[in-house]
Amino acid sequence: MNAPVNIDLLEVGYDIPAKPGMDEKDIQTPCLILDLDALERNIRKMGDYAKAHGMRHRVHGKMHKSVDVAKLQERLGGSVGVCCQKVSEAEVFVRGGIKDVLVSNQVRDPAKIDRLAKLPKLGSDIIVCVDDLENVGDLSAAAVRHGTELGVLVEIDVGAGRCGVSTSQDVVAIARAVEAAPGLSFKGIQAYQGAMQHLDSYEARKEKLDAAVDQVRDAVTALKSVGIEPELVSGGGTGSYYFESNSGVFNELQCGSYAFMDADYGRILDKDGNRIDRGEWENALFILTQVMSHAKADKAVVDAGLKAQSVDSGLPVVFGRDDVKYVKCSDEHGIVADPEGVLKVGDKLRLVPGHCDPTANVHDWYVGVRRGKVETVWPVSARGKAY
Amino acid sequence: MNAPVNIDLLEVGYDIPAKPGMDEKDIQTPCLILDLDALERNIRKMGDYAKAHGMRHRVHGKMHKSVDVAKLQERLGGSVGVCCQKVSEAEVFVRGGIKDVLVSNQVRDPAKIDRLAKLPKLGSDIIVCVDDLENVGDLSAAAVRHGTELGVLVEIDVGAGRCGVSTSQDVVAIARAVEAAPGLSFKGIQAYQGAMQHLDSYEARKEKLDAAVDQVRDAVTALKSVGIEPELVSGGGTGSYYFESNSGVFNELQCGSYAFMDADYGRILDKDGNRIDRGEWENALFILTQVMSHAKADKAVVDAGLKAQSVDSGLPVVFGRDDVKYVKCSDEHGIVADPEGVLKVGDKLRLVPGHCDPTANVHDWYVGVRRGKVETVWPVSARGKAY
Repeated sequence: MNAPVNIDLLEVGYDIPAKPGMDEKDIQTPCLILDLDALERNIRKMGDYAKAHGMRHRVHGKMHKSVDVAKLQERLGGSVGVCCQKVSEAEVFVRGGIKDVLVSNQVRDPAKIDRLAKLPKLGSDIIVCVDDLENVGDLSAAAVRHGTELGVLVEIDVGAGRCGVSTSQDVVAIARAVEAAPGLSFKGIQAYQGAMQHLDSYEARKEKLDAAVDQVRDAVTALKSVGIEPELVSGGGTGSYYFESNSGVFNELQCGSYAFMDADYGRILDKDGNRIDRGEWENALFILTQVMSHAKADKAVVDAGLKAQSVDSGLPVVFGRDDVKYVKCSDEHGIVADPEGVLKVGDKLRLVPGHCDPTANVHDWYVGVRRGKVETVWPVSARGKAY
Repeated sequence: MNAPVNIDLLEVGYDIPAKPGMDEKDIQTPCLILDLDALERNIRKMGDYAKAHGMRHRVHGKMHKSVDVAKLQERLGGSVGVCCQKVSEAEVFVRGGIKDVLVSNQVRDPAKIDRLAKLPKLGSDIIVCVDDLENVGDLSAAAVRHGTELGVLVEIDVGAGRCGVSTSQDVVAIARAVEAAPGLSFKGIQAYQGAMQHLDSYEARKEKLDAAVDQVRDAVTALKSVGIEPELVSGGGTGSYYFESNSGVFNELQCGSYAFMDADYGRILDKDGNRIDRGEWENALFILTQVMSHAKADKAVVDAGLKAQSVDSGLPVVFGRDDVKYVKCSDEHGIVADPEGVLKVGDKLRLVPGHCDPTANVHDWYVGVRRGKVETVWPVSARGKAY
């Protein structure tokens, strides 16, 4: 399955929100649109930063779930491959032609391990994270069964409080087991501090990341002391990449949200106290929505509700408008406060989603726009790939 | 598009979480499962209630977005058709063979009005809501253009504070315009009090609904005084259906969540002060999830996070377990507090989603289980149909 879709056969408004060549004003709502100029500038900027700092950039494909965006990141941003969180996402990226894919997560279910171990046969390098000695044997047996090789990063919990081992002894123990296991190749360390990425203050983020760097440095030292050299020390996100890049320990970044931005990330502050969506990164992803009722004078009802976004990190923000405000959300509706009654039925608004990753996962398509025209429509290739 | 999917061609774990005949233990996670026994009991119970009270039951298809569930509701619950919120959802239900479809929402975009007006050609009755005189002419012109007839309900805002007119004069004005408009047929009143459905207290809900009933009765009286007889007075939800059924004014229910239940609805109380998920309705919908890391002694990490559910109405609840608790959510992970360390990697848990509607909308499939076996796998037919 997952055969390429013939967009010509799709019906606008039923299957797909728009087709290339359409005017932006005719796009059917609600849907996701990408400002291609802004997207390309974000991608180039992070690519240039990584290159200037001698860092590999493995872009986080779980954010956009799009083969097309991942390839744009390779082409314009020099990314070395993708990371993702699920075996089914890895399958999508590999089938889509991405040659270096890291599942930055644990894979424990026997059926999933089996699928993962088959993937290198399609011509891509596959790496997976491990935080439990028991997992090593299962991964090894599957790789041997399929005659493949799986790369392994040992995941360290550097503060996210989720998966990952906590001590350098555990890192060494798993690395040794991996080195001894047929079909596996020890690649290095996974250390993503997810819990600090969204702290507003640059100093607060730095303090958390400094601690993470110390923890990773300790693990690297411990590995070297037993003669194991990690090829990759991978981590970093949109709220921290400068810390990892200047750490002297990490050599690979895993940024995702920088490409699209969202309202929650946008609110965090850079070193100079400026919001990162006011200079560092541009909003490239929007939910396009339309006013579909204005029966009350002071509120407009728009057609993007909970089924067009995730509000886990707060409500969306109306882009470029101070006169109206998205204030409430139900399944299929959003309430936009319109105290001066400036909106009319049929008006369209660009919403900056509260949280880009789970919002992208609700939609089937990205509509890429430039200068008022639909330039491209990309499938959210790994949408719903949660297995 | 939307051709029937051949499940035989799909890959378990990539395209689909399970196939009929599999053991429940082999279902790939995270995914939605339906306890078919519970689902059928819920559907029969509401159907029996509606019948005993002389009410039509037009089930809310926007909740499950499934043609298969809608047909089960027809067969076991005697439902008269579906309502839904979007034209694209209506298209799915009509193409799937549902003969009476109400879009319980405003349709204002010209392209959407055009699609709506074409739908009766496929052999189903189509009704739509109106809350603005201007909309009447647009709907009429489209119906005339396509040689079809659209039924119209005038929507009254009975407290949801969203779409809908506020006065009986407005109801009459729109009804008259509809009666005079070629291609349109005035059908009656839409009056759904969405804001009170989730109030915990039965008495608080009753107070809100009593006010709504008064408002609707006033509108019906006003319509009759000018010689207009509403055929349908439609509304009601899982938290209110007994009020509408005993109102003497409403004659059609639009319940949705009763069939699946969820954690947020389950917490509201019935007349006797009992939670409605402890007797009135059964939990039939679950997110099946698996423990995929337990690197910390007191917390298990499961594979269902924000991309497997919507947490707008709170976190999911682990079904049938008091010893463990889902306490935190990130994009692909859930943290389950496991103070006694009873969970092991690979263990599966049934989660009751916080809010069924937007959770169903994230998934492509319902896996129907009975007595430990996968009996059926149904597509979430209108998933992503937001236009």
